[in-house]
Order: sequence, then C-alpha cells, then structure tokens
Amino acid sequence: MTRGRFISVEGGEGVGKTTQIIALADAIRNAGFEVIITREPGGTPGAETIRQLLLGGSDERWLPRAEALLFAAARSDHVERLIEPALEKGKWVISDRFIDSSRAYQGTGSGLSDADIMALHAIGSRGLLPDRTLVLRLDPIEAGRRADLRDQGQADRIQSRDPSFHAEVDIAFVGFAENDARVRLVDASGDAATVTARLLAEIDDLLVRP
Amino acid sequence: MTRGRFISVEGGEGVGKTTQIIALADAIRNAGFEVIITREPGGTPGAETIRQLLLGGSDERWLPRAEALLFAAARSDHVERLIEPALEKGKWVISDRFIDSSRAYQGTGSGLSDADIMALHAIGSRGLLPDRTLVLRLDPIEAGRRADLRDQGQADRIQSRDPSFHAEVDIAFVGFAENDARVRLVDASGDAATVTARLLAEIDDLLVRP
Repeated sequence: MTRGRFISVEGGEGVGKTTQIIALADAIRNAGFEVIITREPGGTPGAETIRQLLLGGSDERWLPRAEALLFAAARSDHVERLIEPALEKGKWVISDRFIDSSRAYQGTGSGLSDADIMALHAIGSRGLLPDRTLVLRLDPIEAGRRADLRDQGQADRIQSRDPSFHAEVDIAFVGFAENDARVRLVDASGDAATVTARLLAEIDDLLVRP
Repeated sequence: MTRGRFISVEGGEGVGKTTQIIALADAIRNAGFEVIITREPGGTPGAETIRQLLLGGSDERWLPRAEALLFAAARSDHVERLIEPALEKGKWVISDRFIDSSRAYQGTGSGLSDADIMALHAIGSRGLLPDRTLVLRLDPIEAGRRADLRDQGQADRIQSRDPSFHAEVDIAFVGFAENDARVRLVDASGDAATVTARLLAEIDDLLVRP
C-alpha cells in the first residue's frame, strides 16, 4: 500500500479556504485517489472538545503558553487518531490549517519561539509535516470584506485580534515559504476556478501515480 | 519581599494527602507565613476546565501524548496565574500533586520519556520546580482499603487503572527521591499527627525566617 499524501491549506479569514479545499478534494478524487477533508483545531471528537476551549471566551482566557499546549494536544489527537491511520491506508488528507498555523499564530508576539512550537509538535505528533502546504493570500482589505460578509461579526477569540496581529501572521507565512519548498504561497484573488487551478499547479508533481 | 516557598505533596490514592496538606498548612501558618493550598490538575478556572477533560470519560479517551500535553497546559495556567504570583508576593504554596505526578504517571508505560515530560514543563511553566516535594507512601493494601472507604467505587479514569500501573508509579517516585534531594519519601502509616510530624521534619530547614 502506497502511503497517502498529506496537504495542509493555510490562510487568514476571508481568503476562500473552505471553497478551495472542496474543489481541491474533487480534483484529487478525479485523479483516482481517496480523499479525507479535515480541519484544525479539531477533526476528532477529542480535538473538537479542545477546540471549544481554544476558540470560546475572551482573548485573555488563555495565556500564550497554555494556548500553544492546547493546540498541540488537539493536533496530537488529530494526527494519531485520524491523519496517520488515513495516510497509512493510502488515503490523501487535506487539513484546513495544521502546524504552520501554530507557528504563525502562537509564535507571533507570544514569547514562544518557533523552536518551542516545533518541540511541542515533535512530542505530540512525532513532528509530522505535510507533503505540501498551500498558503492562500489576499490583499487584507479584500479578505476583511469577504470575512465580514460571511461572519456578520461572529468572530472567535483569535479571529477578533487586531489587524496588526494578522499582518504579522502573514509575514510569518511568507517567511516559512522562503525557507521551505514544502510551503507555497498562492494568490487567492480572482474567481474560484482560477484560484483552484493555481493550487493544483502547486501539487501536480504529487498527483502522479507511482 | 522574600519569595515564598513552593511545596508539592505527592502520593497515590488513600495515603491521606488531603488531610496532611491541611495539617501542613496550619503548621506553616503557625510559623508566621501566609499559605495557599491548591491542587493539580486544576487550581485555576482554566486548568479546572482542562481537569474535566482529563479525568472524565473512559481510559481510552486520550492517548498518552495528548494526555501529557493537556496536563502541561493545565499546569501552565496554574503556574502563571496562581503559583508564581503567590510566590512573588511572599506566600507559601502547597500543591496537591505537581510535575512529579506527570513524570510518574505520564512517563510510565506511555512511550514518552522523562525528558519529553520535562521539555513540556520547560515550555509551559518555564521549568518551575518545587522547593520541596513530599511523597506520601503506604503499603498498597492499606492504601486501597482507605481509598475504597472514601470513594465508594467512584474512581476517575486514572485512579481506575490496574494495580501493576500504580506499582510502577510508586517505583518512579522512589527513583526521583534517589536522584534529587528535593524529593523526600515519607511513611504515611500510623495516625495523622505522627505523619504530620514526619512531613514537618522534612521541611524544617525551609521554615526558618531569613
């Protein structure tokens, strides 16, 4: 059994992640693979209970260290109970967010280093990395307009942080792409089909049957 | 302001931890110090919500890696929001369980090493160690009898693990005491006042006013 491929999709609110993940899964299924779509934090019953702790309440509910540990705990359950077993069965897994979200969000202005976040990932999830990470990026004004249209002011405790925080997060993702060929920046502007084509161009080397 | 002292009390079910912690706090107050009693997992509102995730449900609810991360997350909140601020104000803190419980319980038969548990503690709680750790020990048959009398079969998901697990945990605590003068083994047999006197003998060097 050939091991499946693991793709993570990253990007701030309003960039069209959910729509694009569904389109990406359809294209990969059309290429003859089984595909599972999942998300973080969450994806398994245990991780979803931790998600409720993480995204509910005020921004002050968790200090950065506890928050990073809770994300790592949810990811550990997700990896051990869903992602790894699926990959071992030859399925592809597409996750809406993964470790790079922790590196960008918890590693930004928290007092925790990227090495700390990766140490938690090594212990919790044996350091599992995606085969490819696609970062959807949009001009912040356009992204804010799309997110507002959808959420109607119902932002969670991380979405509701101020614009300068989200700008720093974007800078972090650009840095990951500069340092690691696994991470690809993808322009999320234009119509959905155009964006899907850009995403598929970044994974076409993986879609070849062995 | 002289920093307060931090004492953790460890030991399995039925050894009389709760009774002894109250007696210890009274004795330390009589020596002229302010004392806060707390417990793990828990001690703060955030950590108590994590405690509910950890102790409820079946033994299979969490795999060892996620469990270790959840304990570290609860401890981080407890240290940053309660223990450190109290110590900085000169108060003594007595905690019913602390890091050595994670080392003994999560480090036993879990696939995680002591170094992993200490790495989580370094990131979550800046590696804070108690000034003294008192491990109450009792013959397992006597401890089981006392715990049954109290709990009437209402054991949580960690208490309900089998006797060989609890024997391995005891061996772990003995090892900590052999390797670190911070950790003291205390015989919990006999009447409560006798046990309290044994505990106080292990901290009398700390009770001297500077």
